[in-house]
Amino acid sequence: MRTQVGIIGAGPAGLLLSHLLHLQGIDSIILESRSREEIEGTIRAGVLEQGTVDLLNATGVGARMMKEGHVHHGIELQFNGRRHRIDMHELTGGKKITVYAQHEVIKDLVAARLEAGAKIYFNVKDVSLHQIESSSPIIQFLPENATDYEEVNCDFIAGCDGFHGPSRQAIPANLRVEKQKIYPFGWLGILAKTPQVNPELIYSNHERGFALISTRSPEIQRHYIQVDPKDDIANWSDDRIWSELHARVDMDGWSILDGPIIQKNIVSMRSFVCETMRYGNLFLAGDAAHIVPPTGAKGLNLAAADVQVLAKGLSEYYHSGEEDLLNRYSEICLRRIWKAQRFSYWMTTMLHRNFEHSSFEYNIQLAELDYVTSSQAAATSLAENYVGLPMEIQTNYSIKI
Amino acid sequence: MRTQVGIIGAGPAGLLLSHLLHLQGIDSIILESRSREEIEGTIRAGVLEQGTVDLLNATGVGARMMKEGHVHHGIELQFNGRRHRIDMHELTGGKKITVYAQHEVIKDLVAARLEAGAKIYFNVKDVSLHQIESSSPIIQFLPENATDYEEVNCDFIAGCDGFHGPSRQAIPANLRVEKQKIYPFGWLGILAKTPQVNPELIYSNHERGFALISTRSPEIQRHYIQVDPKDDIANWSDDRIWSELHARVDMDGWSILDGPIIQKNIVSMRSFVCETMRYGNLFLAGDAAHIVPPTGAKGLNLAAADVQVLAKGLSEYYHSGEEDLLNRYSEICLRRIWKAQRFSYWMTTMLHRNFEHSSFEYNIQLAELDYVTSSQAAATSLAENYVGLPMEIQTNYSIKI
Repeated sequence: MRTQVGIIGAGPAGLLLSHLLHLQGIDSIILESRSREEIEGTIRAGVLEQGTVDLLNATGVGARMMKEGHVHHGIELQFNGRRHRIDMHELTGGKKITVYAQHEVIKDLVAARLEAGAKIYFNVKDVSLHQIESSSPIIQFLPENATDYEEVNCDFIAGCDGFHGPSRQAIPANLRVEKQKIYPFGWLGILAKTPQVNPELIYSNHERGFALISTRSPEIQRHYIQVDPKDDIANWSDDRIWSELHARVDMDGWSILDGPIIQKNIVSMRSFVCETMRYGNLFLAGDAAHIVPPTGAKGLNLAAADVQVLAKGLSEYYHSGEEDLLNRYSEICLRRIWKAQRFSYWMTTMLHRNFEHSSFEYNIQLAELDYVTSSQAAATSLAENYVGLPMEIQTNYSIKI
Repeated sequence: MRTQVGIIGAGPAGLLLSHLLHLQGIDSIILESRSREEIEGTIRAGVLEQGTVDLLNATGVGARMMKEGHVHHGIELQFNGRRHRIDMHELTGGKKITVYAQHEVIKDLVAARLEAGAKIYFNVKDVSLHQIESSSPIIQFLPENATDYEEVNCDFIAGCDGFHGPSRQAIPANLRVEKQKIYPFGWLGILAKTPQVNPELIYSNHERGFALISTRSPEIQRHYIQVDPKDDIANWSDDRIWSELHARVDMDGWSILDGPIIQKNIVSMRSFVCETMRYGNLFLAGDAAHIVPPTGAKGLNLAAADVQVLAKGLSEYYHSGEEDLLNRYSEICLRRIWKAQRFSYWMTTMLHRNFEHSSFEYNIQLAELDYVTSSQAAATSLAENYVGLPMEIQTNYSIKI
């Protein structure tokens, strides 16, 4: 089969890219190793930057998000027994974030793509990339329930297949540099059937470890506590989890509300960047090229920013033959990615208790929180990163993301 | 002999405290282990915050500083072959810094104190503190050329005797907590007879290591390069120093100017905080209680802030019997000190090359510089710390430092 852009992966990056290309009259095919049910049912957090929300709305896939998502104008930082609000809306001249889970974004994008007649192949196996240095790269794969391989012949391949996918590995090892940091922190996350306790997210730095209070709906809450990333979820009874949450976030006269825990798991945290994001006619986007720890809530937003640049570059190429933006794709994305990495690293180190740290470093952490919550400039810095930094693309025209 | 406040140490903290107390009609005696020539001749850097300049002027010891000091409205940050100006004056609503060496401040304060008839004992030996828990503490010391010890009987002792002085050690070890960080960086500093090359300080992050271009006068320049703190200055010929400076700060069409090096030395860097700063009737101020790495240029300014709080507290005590401010001295100073420690730590880690760091951490450093020089909020955050954070003291009246 033949298409203009072969997309590997039906996560937010691949689906959104296919959608954006479609709006520009560019044809694509998506290959996904999981089932539709799996990608739509894997529960993931979702904090959408103002720019991501604007993009989804502008391209016609924001209706359910606007109805079911929760707009937040600020966040709360808690430490030393006090709670401080960062008013993002006021500090950024009116920007805000929308809490809307990643799998809900995926559902909306899959529906829109299928309705437009897109070709999405689920449950494919053995995806491999070929001739990516040439102008006619090939993706080979084994379709669902098939015994014979098929090929997608295309002009470009978009590697949107996440950290463990084959795309990044298709770039020769000597031509890519992978940079990463593994944190000594894990997040134990729960979904609980309890009433919402606070209108906004609470990030708590406690001497026992970090905790995050967030919400999914008025009836379902999503909370996290910092644990050892090697810990086993079997060690965490519901009682132990609630007891730890109470210890880390309750204040005089304020308490979270216990209730049935309907899901719990532990995830580890890493920062990762692959330089370059382009090799030949292969372009990496989203988690295939970079991973951030969840503390800054940047993962989905970085994927959306990547594919927005890529879609513009491909649109310029197909409509005017101009390759400038495609040639600068990696450079443009990486500059903003490193700033988002910086923010995620800063939020992570400021909020988690690092038990390997000295008492000096612990005080620096508390001083950072004291400074951020007492300086307008520092609070603005947090806010502008949280709602999403602008990205200026200097090209024939200037676009802002 | 008898006085109201016995001051150990004739550095900036001790001299300025004695001066401020004198203006409030409070008597003090200063004991100093070095000679007047030594304290006035030991060359030290000096970047004075707006608040420190205001204080020296308001108390009548700023005349020579205003004539000979250099007012700077900004600093420059250099990395990745580009230079970016942080306009502190504009970002902070008109504040600025004054480059005026610490030993010049000391000369001015010694002159003012002696002219006012102050008792400063230079070249004393064997200073020891006694009965500091009581209301009549005693400082014992051996005067210059004497064989018999003398005693200062006082109401309060101010320990302004630096990191290695006896005052801090007089607080029982179980009642003080010392927190510190030793950096793997040293500063090789030179004084050179060369023309000034830039109107403002240049902080350069280079892959070979940090460099700082600063000025003492139109004819004498003060430059620094990051070296191993254990390195021996004997390994550094003038040629090698200039060659390293050129490599770290020269840009297309711009070069520092070589010339005779008239002084060179290597200093190591540490961050240090002693909690508490008060025990009984002993109050620590300046380097006796805290050390910052020089990158943030905060040392002298923190000493000035400490003694300003202490002088106000003592003044309240002597004039109205009110002890509230004295009782909160440690808490008030430490909150601002930790913020200054945070800033100094941040500047140090952002600007120095840490050869133990991973490539991920190096990119985070560059992203921090990219962010600081491209965000108004982040640049304002740097600027407001550099010119000096305000300090609010909630007491019977509110004072701002």
